[in-house]
Amino acid sequence: MTTEPAEPYGPTPRTKPTRSPERARYDRPTVHAILDSAYLCHLGYLREGAPVVLPTLYARRGETLYVHGSTGSRPLRSARQGPGLAVCLTVTHVDGLVLARSAFHHSINYRSVVVQGTARQVTDEDERRTALDAIVNQVVAGRAADSRPANAKELAATAVLRLDLDEVSAKLRTGGPNDEPEDLALPYWSGVVPVRQTYGTPEPAADLAPSIPLPAYLSR
Amino acid sequence: MTTEPAEPYGPTPRTKPTRSPERARYDRPTVHAILDSAYLCHLGYLREGAPVVLPTLYARRGETLYVHGSTGSRPLRSARQGPGLAVCLTVTHVDGLVLARSAFHHSINYRSVVVQGTARQVTDEDERRTALDAIVNQVVAGRAADSRPANAKELAATAVLRLDLDEVSAKLRTGGPNDEPEDLALPYWSGVVPVRQTYGTPEPAADLAPSIPLPAYLSR
Repeated sequence: MTTEPAEPYGPTPRTKPTRSPERARYDRPTVHAILDSAYLCHLGYLREGAPVVLPTLYARRGETLYVHGSTGSRPLRSARQGPGLAVCLTVTHVDGLVLARSAFHHSINYRSVVVQGTARQVTDEDERRTALDAIVNQVVAGRAADSRPANAKELAATAVLRLDLDEVSAKLRTGGPNDEPEDLALPYWSGVVPVRQTYGTPEPAADLAPSIPLPAYLSR
Repeated sequence: MTTEPAEPYGPTPRTKPTRSPERARYDRPTVHAILDSAYLCHLGYLREGAPVVLPTLYARRGETLYVHGSTGSRPLRSARQGPGLAVCLTVTHVDGLVLARSAFHHSINYRSVVVQGTARQVTDEDERRTALDAIVNQVVAGRAADSRPANAKELAATAVLRLDLDEVSAKLRTGGPNDEPEDLALPYWSGVVPVRQTYGTPEPAADLAPSIPLPAYLSR
């Protein structure tokens, strides 16, 4: 295991929120926990000067995030060249719907991480393989070792980008509604509706041999 | 009700995907259904030339999306000026984890909509109120009418942006793994783990009068 730095991410002018600064966090355990409990991010970059935001899988290894894609895709082609690709990678968990007495104080309980920086294409073959395994394992822990590894043709078709965790902030809201004192007597229900992502019963592929059992890592 | 145009969104060079074009959709019913079954988007814009992606609530009304925020927030200040704010608004539902025999063919079943365009601040007071109600109702249908409307001070503190549904594409993946024929005999489990967002039992605010019952719109 790489030893991870213990100090928090230093807030920068770009990572200090202008709104609700009390919800911001910069400590690594909070940031890592949010990143490690998701697998889908929204990746923003510029295409011909305009912002584009696409959902994509990612993985964290230590202080680096990895995303992958086809070598033919537009952002990955850009990252190959020169100074890399300026990106913003955002991960959001929704934990609850916050219903206040006032429309104004309606909110969402959430945990999010925003990473800004420069994504660069990974060329080292070992790092590429490790990153691709990590992306599979981020979706289902333990799955990479229980599947056929990428062959030479598949590796050649796959680009891997790395983004270092340098300019990073987390933001989170927890708890109940923040109603105004003068609204507390109003006749409206107020509270939180919990939200979570749940997993259904795994559905075997139609052509799966019946002799192959459900793996332990899916029995959660 | 406004009559909605029936023709699909015209694909543009910006909305035609370079990868997996068979997953792209441009018809309005598909786009609207994806937008109407979510309430959180990831909004991308430029801050000092760099991409930023933030999670935020939104609502659809006809062929317009609305987002809101504090009048002091950076993107909303930008949208007030001159030509508006170039944005990309992306909504993603995750429907399943797709586990193939090969690491390469692992995927996600998802439905996403990407809207590119220029966000402009709404100044008409009626449209502002309607948009704010729509954002509350997008989270919980029927809730806006069962809460205290924003007062003058709250309205003054809230900026509303509109983004027309003009340059729009949906992308979706459904179904099982696409394994290579030569991988079908491998001893790895293959299939789909369904994913969905679920809602827990509503938790009343600590200071809610016990006489106020759970509203019908939360009994789902």
